[in-house]
Amino acid sequence: MPRMQFWFEIGSTYTYLTVARIGRLAEAAGVEVEWRPFLLMPILVKAGMTQGPFLPYPGKTAYMWRDIERRAQEHGVPYRQPLKYPPDEVLTSARLALLGMQEGWGRRFVEEVFRLHWTQQLQIGTSGNIGGALQAAGQDPAAALERSRTPAIKAGLKTQTEEAEARGVFGSPSFMVGDELFWGDDRLEQAIAWARRD
Amino acid sequence: MPRMQFWFEIGSTYTYLTVARIGRLAEAAGVEVEWRPFLLMPILVKAGMTQGPFLPYPGKTAYMWRDIERRAQEHGVPYRQPLKYPPDEVLTSARLALLGMQEGWGRRFVEEVFRLHWTQQLQIGTSGNIGGALQAAGQDPAAALERSRTPAIKAGLKTQTEEAEARGVFGSPSFMVGDELFWGDDRLEQAIAWARRD
Repeated sequence: MPRMQFWFEIGSTYTYLTVARIGRLAEAAGVEVEWRPFLLMPILVKAGMTQGPFLPYPGKTAYMWRDIERRAQEHGVPYRQPLKYPPDEVLTSARLALLGMQEGWGRRFVEEVFRLHWTQQLQIGTSGNIGGALQAAGQDPAAALERSRTPAIKAGLKTQTEEAEARGVFGSPSFMVGDELFWGDDRLEQAIAWARRD
Repeated sequence: MPRMQFWFEIGSTYTYLTVARIGRLAEAAGVEVEWRPFLLMPILVKAGMTQGPFLPYPGKTAYMWRDIERRAQEHGVPYRQPLKYPPDEVLTSARLALLGMQEGWGRRFVEEVFRLHWTQQLQIGTSGNIGGALQAAGQDPAAALERSRTPAIKAGLKTQTEEAEARGVFGSPSFMVGDELFWGDDRLEQAIAWARRD
């Protein structure tokens, strides 16, 4: 079966469009997706990109919101602008995502984290978002949180972030088919097609 | 007839993909395109974006070249990586583009400027590129260059750049359908569809 990796940062805006679409699109195309959470900020800071591509520029930020809204409409993805951006805290959710990928409930958890943030105004990183997403993924919140705070998970997320950087990832969402890197939700279809062709 | 504006900076990389595609796509869709050259650097500098979105970061720049090559292949657009980037000089070509839009030969000129740069390694801003593109557009190079150096054309390009900035343009290629702004070659199809719907 054709395979691709989906590298994602929990706090990234455009990543919502991908999280809402990739499951259905990849299944329809018969492509297996490996979901790989990582932390984007350490990579950006190391590269000197301290602010990401949109935030420092008011005109560009306004465009980003409008563009996301339009893309969501075009793709039939529910969308409601979050109350606040960026989220205060992404580390807890990223560690839970990694734990969930290892234990088999990660995709459902991540889909719900984004859905709550991007349609219900339940901010990423808040207990409401984390608890709701864990329950949707069939997990006991307290127990899952405890498992996500082990040294193995903390180190695992760090290692995964280093792997992302080593492989050339500098933004989210990113897709890899072998060594071929695709950046941006607007490259999702192309990456899936690439995986099928390979 | 549905209408859209195409705002472009001569020295922009991804703009090549649009210049090579927009004529055919818009004609097929029955959308009239107004080609509007402007200078991106003054807008970026004023906004504090002194380097554009790709150049300062080696990994991102490498990605950009690979992405453009892949997109060109996907769209059936001829492509050969230019010897040098960015071009040393874009002002002369931008003024000629504005003159040509006013006189009716601008689109052919701009298409040839980009084609020579992106397939023949004839750098934008060199006399070979400018002369070749003017001849392809049916113009006597010396005479057109002289007309492009009038105060009216110099001021006209400045005014057009100010209009771009006032309307929220911060990158190239950009498309406007009424007040709706689209940024990037990967939004070309969406902008055309928007123009048809309006």
